Amino acid sequence: MPSLPVTVDRADPRPLGIQLADQVRRLVLAGTLVTGDRLPSTRRLATELGVARSVTEQAWDQLRAEGWIEGRQGAGTFVTGGHTDVPIAPRRRRTPAPERALVRLDAGTPWLDARHAAGWRRAWREVSAATPPRGYDDPRGLPALRMQLAERLGRTRGLIVDPDDVRLTAGTTAGLRHLLAVLPHGPVAMEDPGYRAAVLTVRATGRAVVDLPAEAAITDLAGCCAAYVTPAHQHPLGRVMPAEDRLTLLTTARRDGALVIEDDYDSEFRYDVAPVPALASLGQDTVAYLGTASKSVAPSLRLGWMVLPSSLRASLDRHREVTHDAPAWPVQRAYWALLRDGYVDAVVRSARRIYAERAPRVVAALSPYAELAGPVAGMYSTWLLPQDRAVRARAAVRAAGFDLNLLDTYCRSARLTGLVVGFGGASDAQLDEALAVLVASLSS
Amino acid sequence: MPSLPVTVDRADPRPLGIQLADQVRRLVLAGTLVTGDRLPSTRRLATELGVARSVTEQAWDQLRAEGWIEGRQGAGTFVTGGHTDVPIAPRRRRTPAPERALVRLDAGTPWLDARHAAGWRRAWREVSAATPPRGYDDPRGLPALRMQLAERLGRTRGLIVDPDDVRLTAGTTAGLRHLLAVLPHGPVAMEDPGYRAAVLTVRATGRAVVDLPAEAAITDLAGCCAAYVTPAHQHPLGRVMPAEDRLTLLTTARRDGALVIEDDYDSEFRYDVAPVPALASLGQDTVAYLGTASKSVAPSLRLGWMVLPSSLRASLDRHREVTHDAPAWPVQRAYWALLRDGYVDAVVRSARRIYAERAPRVVAALSPYAELAGPVAGMYSTWLLPQDRAVRARAAVRAAGFDLNLLDTYCRSARLTGLVVGFGGASDAQLDEALAVLVASLSS
Repeated sequence: MPSLPVTVDRADPRPLGIQLADQVRRLVLAGTLVTGDRLPSTRRLATELGVARSVTEQAWDQLRAEGWIEGRQGAGTFVTGGHTDVPIAPRRRRTPAPERALVRLDAGTPWLDARHAAGWRRAWREVSAATPPRGYDDPRGLPALRMQLAERLGRTRGLIVDPDDVRLTAGTTAGLRHLLAVLPHGPVAMEDPGYRAAVLTVRATGRAVVDLPAEAAITDLAGCCAAYVTPAHQHPLGRVMPAEDRLTLLTTARRDGALVIEDDYDSEFRYDVAPVPALASLGQDTVAYLGTASKSVAPSLRLGWMVLPSSLRASLDRHREVTHDAPAWPVQRAYWALLRDGYVDAVVRSARRIYAERAPRVVAALSPYAELAGPVAGMYSTWLLPQDRAVRARAAVRAAGFDLNLLDTYCRSARLTGLVVGFGGASDAQLDEALAVLVASLSS
Repeated sequence: MPSLPVTVDRADPRPLGIQLADQVRRLVLAGTLVTGDRLPSTRRLATELGVARSVTEQAWDQLRAEGWIEGRQGAGTFVTGGHTDVPIAPRRRRTPAPERALVRLDAGTPWLDARHAAGWRRAWREVSAATPPRGYDDPRGLPALRMQLAERLGRTRGLIVDPDDVRLTAGTTAGLRHLLAVLPHGPVAMEDPGYRAAVLTVRATGRAVVDLPAEAAITDLAGCCAAYVTPAHQHPLGRVMPAEDRLTLLTTARRDGALVIEDDYDSEFRYDVAPVPALASLGQDTVAYLGTASKSVAPSLRLGWMVLPSSLRASLDRHREVTHDAPAWPVQRAYWALLRDGYVDAVVRSARRIYAERAPRVVAALSPYAELAGPVAGMYSTWLLPQDRAVRARAAVRAAGFDLNLLDTYCRSARLTGLVVGFGGASDAQLDEALAVLVASLSS
């Protein structure tokens, strides 16, 4: 019998010393060994176990490094890290729960045409062959990608920017978070109803949110450090902010010392007219512009960009340099290839054609039963309905395997009820099925 | 002469109607057209310009959608969005400034062995062939990747976890941010000196930071919602938290109702003994565990994971489901392949051998001139020096093309000065050169 209740198992792939250390650690945690207990010498234990002395020395070295035991000059080795009031967490292992299988008819799931798969594959094959940067890369984002984005913002959004003003982000809320990190502490004015992820992001900074009625001119930002708006396509009511309101907003923001944060999430998808130029094109000194690849290419890329007023550039770069809060390099590299090869333009054109065909289909199906909240653009429509009918309709589509959001979940002070019906993330057949279920519920 | 100073240019690839709309918008912004000005009819302008009426109608539709003009029943079309006090931002475009070229000898830039490039390429080629998810994917992270991580955490960190307790993050600070989003508001206790990105992340939530002397037992967390610690390798002083201090921390956290947040950033790199098991293995109910791919594979992956106390799971998942704050799907898919193929184990083994050889080289070179702050592990060593000598040495290595950090930048109340000397992100020749420059400065 060894002087400690431990054994070695030569069939176990772990080194014998590690096996021993592990067993002694458990004895201490279980309270079998307590602080002050004297341990056998490495020589004696090695003899008892029939192992080389280097094995027991390795175990004692490990336990000493972890602080479980200590040697006292001339006296031997003693347990030192022994409390007995810490229960060991129960050990269990289950397989993960299955992913939710509902087809999401939400405001942000875009349609992807299988025809473009070759371009996607090519971009990622390039990533596979490229050499990743050593360490953290340029915290502003890949210079070549910032060049491409600056070119495209000018061409598609009327936003003439210097690539040095462009920063890559891990999406819209990441850009908002970086801006908040360098703005003075103070409330943020936000559209109501509005984008819930942005509201959570602001609240996570400990800031209050001031409700801006989503369809009114913004004439007062006193005390606010910023105003967060979706001028190209109010989320989720759909309105385009009129030119006069845009100019009023810029005048108000300048007067009250607030930054305007423009979330330009899906502005490339309009079916009546060409995309409305970005608000930031009217005043880059006052407006921080946030764009995203989520609606044009794929939300799961977690890629976005921002165009900064030059006054914020230095402090924001310092913040990002310390936090390393930038999008993954492989994603930036792939998106650069996708832009360069015309993939992004091609998928936007295809999706715009699909949405332009689906939008009137959704409107025709639902307008006999609900009131459209605003013009339909992007990949969703918003419908006003009494809450009980909206809740019932949502339950019906969920039972049929689809998911969509209630309008009231976007509201804070606003008292609007209804449904947000996305039409990007489903096949044509799925969309028809979901619309039929909605119509059946709403007409009953 | 047309009745408006506009023209069409058939050599311009943009549609003629968009060209017209653009020119009218500029006239309004420049103040040439002001609110109330009557515009010519689409028929008249079409005749004057020699274009189809559909062209002028497209332009007017666009401007009406943007709110620059409005039609008044029976009276014609008028400018409505005209302020003149908003200067148009100056248009300029430069090429981006070049990337910084300094070789970073920091605490977090790992070494990458070219021998492993084939495994990296294979993983990304798989991404190129895989079908990305439609819309946002599972907000907890890829189930298959969570399975792999749970297995590896048990094997390498002594952390027996259920895959359902694992969440993928965009890195350590992202995990910290998610935890803070669901913890009660209140100060966070953090090691001093400590990880600066974590401090900025806590402060960005509007919380105060309570300084914990980095090498003392933690016996008081009253009023704190959490304690952020690096028990496997105190960042940047190097100490392994002794077993007794670990148990004391857990007891204190349970008594004071604080969550322990364990940042386990580089624990796989120890050269004397086997890696010390994770603190979370002693109490998964009290400890949230944060791991990262930055130190083992590449920081530019922006990938990390956390193991949650089950009490936080539901609220954290709700938060992540709304914010979509998860790592990019292609990165998760690639990391799953890298784990499955043994790539991660292989690069960790290679790097451990390299670091085990470099660590004593750095110690031998610098110990005649500075005092080592603690045991060397991971990919850096920390040296105590008077501030003036540290500043001078840093200036010397920067002039030679390297960058490293001053110890005082990690301090808040602590009054420690010196240098943090990383040895992961350089070639052997570069490391020799940097050490020679440091020695020359420190010995002068």
